[in-house]
Amino acid sequence: MITLDDVRAAAAQIAPLVRRTPSMAAEPAQLPLAAGARVSLKLECLQVSGSFKARGAFSRLTLLGPDARQRGLVTASGGNHGIAVAYAAHAAGLAATVVVPTGVHSDKAARIRAYGATLILEGAVWDEANARARAIAEETGAAYVHPFADPAVAAGQGTIALEVLADDPEIDTLLVAIGGGGLIAGVAAAAAALKPDIRIVGVEPTGAPTLHDSLAAGEVVTLASVTTRVPTLAARRTERTNFELIRRHVRDVVLVEDEDLAHAARHLWAEYGIAADLSGAASAAALLAGAYRPKPGERICAIVCGAGADALAS
Amino acid sequence: MITLDDVRAAAAQIAPLVRRTPSMAAEPAQLPLAAGARVSLKLECLQVSGSFKARGAFSRLTLLGPDARQRGLVTASGGNHGIAVAYAAHAAGLAATVVVPTGVHSDKAARIRAYGATLILEGAVWDEANARARAIAEETGAAYVHPFADPAVAAGQGTIALEVLADDPEIDTLLVAIGGGGLIAGVAAAAAALKPDIRIVGVEPTGAPTLHDSLAAGEVVTLASVTTRVPTLAARRTERTNFELIRRHVRDVVLVEDEDLAHAARHLWAEYGIAADLSGAASAAALLAGAYRPKPGERICAIVCGAGADALAS
Repeated sequence: MITLDDVRAAAAQIAPLVRRTPSMAAEPAQLPLAAGARVSLKLECLQVSGSFKARGAFSRLTLLGPDARQRGLVTASGGNHGIAVAYAAHAAGLAATVVVPTGVHSDKAARIRAYGATLILEGAVWDEANARARAIAEETGAAYVHPFADPAVAAGQGTIALEVLADDPEIDTLLVAIGGGGLIAGVAAAAAALKPDIRIVGVEPTGAPTLHDSLAAGEVVTLASVTTRVPTLAARRTERTNFELIRRHVRDVVLVEDEDLAHAARHLWAEYGIAADLSGAASAAALLAGAYRPKPGERICAIVCGAGADALAS
Repeated sequence: MITLDDVRAAAAQIAPLVRRTPSMAAEPAQLPLAAGARVSLKLECLQVSGSFKARGAFSRLTLLGPDARQRGLVTASGGNHGIAVAYAAHAAGLAATVVVPTGVHSDKAARIRAYGATLILEGAVWDEANARARAIAEETGAAYVHPFADPAVAAGQGTIALEVLADDPEIDTLLVAIGGGGLIAGVAAAAAALKPDIRIVGVEPTGAPTLHDSLAAGEVVTLASVTTRVPTLAARRTERTNFELIRRHVRDVVLVEDEDLAHAARHLWAEYGIAADLSGAASAAALLAGAYRPKPGERICAIVCGAGADALAS
């Protein structure tokens, strides 16, 4: 299981490769995210590649030796992780192959190609694309980069927590979106070690309650079905070491509807000029929809973990 | 002419009403804004109402006595200033009337209405809308808020400079978009007083070289025609006290094409996840298009002064 030391080591490795994203107080505002609470937004949507996923991708990449680098990277993702791996490989001058499901958003596919990666369309869902990515890794010796089930990746994502607590050590509560759980696991490892009484709250869509149901069951469960239309939050199953970190350190996982995510993305744009994708809007959605109800004066940091144009009026 | 003291007084007045927007280093990046220079972005696109104009609007509003407040605000603007006045009036519980040219962007009109202002469409250009706004002020006693020819407004805009220099006192150069010149006049008043050797550089479109031509002529000139398609940068004439501040403190005014602005807005989105409008992208455009060429190691702050969705892929 990753520790604060792992996260700090990852931070040192990736510091020249990623941005130190700013936080901003979410006030004043016409319509506060949570009346009576003090909310700040961690603007990780301004990260290189458009999301926090760059932290994990670079964290993984910096651990590769010269031989492995020559063979390049391979991954499967229909979303931000694929863009991040393509971005990291491009920045390091390495080859990358990204396998995506056939229904991939054209904009995301274009970004993966723009960073010079080889794009392969395979299968209807991530699992099928991933089988192909695993096969390519086997055949070519390319380094396979899992979106979340990799300690180096989770340690990279956890570097966000170091910055949030450096910006405001008085934070009471962190709100974190959950897809496969890599972000919240890394954040939990670092934040709970730095500040044992911090409240870490995960946010999932009702249509993919992966960690919510796993915590309720006391073990990793595989969802029978995923009904959310938000692909970046649609993991059927988390990974054991992420689960153990989350079980130990995450106070609660709250659920929001897809429409709450869309509403929150529109709100972030209209009120703050922030162009978040639907997973990036999840932490704000938990407040706006009342899925998480803070106490008066509670200091909350909502991580806006990815950029997107979906919710913007043209 | 406004002074640093005026800007500081405005900052104290508007502090609870506007956001302390963050700055972010513009690196690492796949394609740097200016190779060899150290560029930071002042993210004023995250300001309340979507642009720096809120600073000036609140600065003006806080000077009104109780009687004047009762009579409300009136202004003319097809753009960010109109939204800012509507926002400020709404926040203060005052009535506002915003007169816009008939060609106003539907999104901007919708935002003005969303903040509860009365929207009046009048005339083909700002001057005609403004004549109507002036007449309304005369008839009703509402406080007229000029977009830039008002010391209280310019002092409000200048508060950005206090934040930029607090965030990084080592800044060598400030890049500032020019429409009517209120922003750069206020910024110049504050920045030149705080740091006399700072280099302040204005950016105008080639189709509206208002300050560029006025500086060349040594006096305020009225442009015979305005050919830029960017309404927020399309002023035919600046105002005398702004001109005097700019003549004294601004090192240079550089020109960029409309297409450079569009390219810079797309670049800010693809590289940084920043959704700027075309005026907000002007400072980045000056670097990307080579209109301003920094020295190696020069520390530059590019003010991203407004938000917009124009350049975003859907």
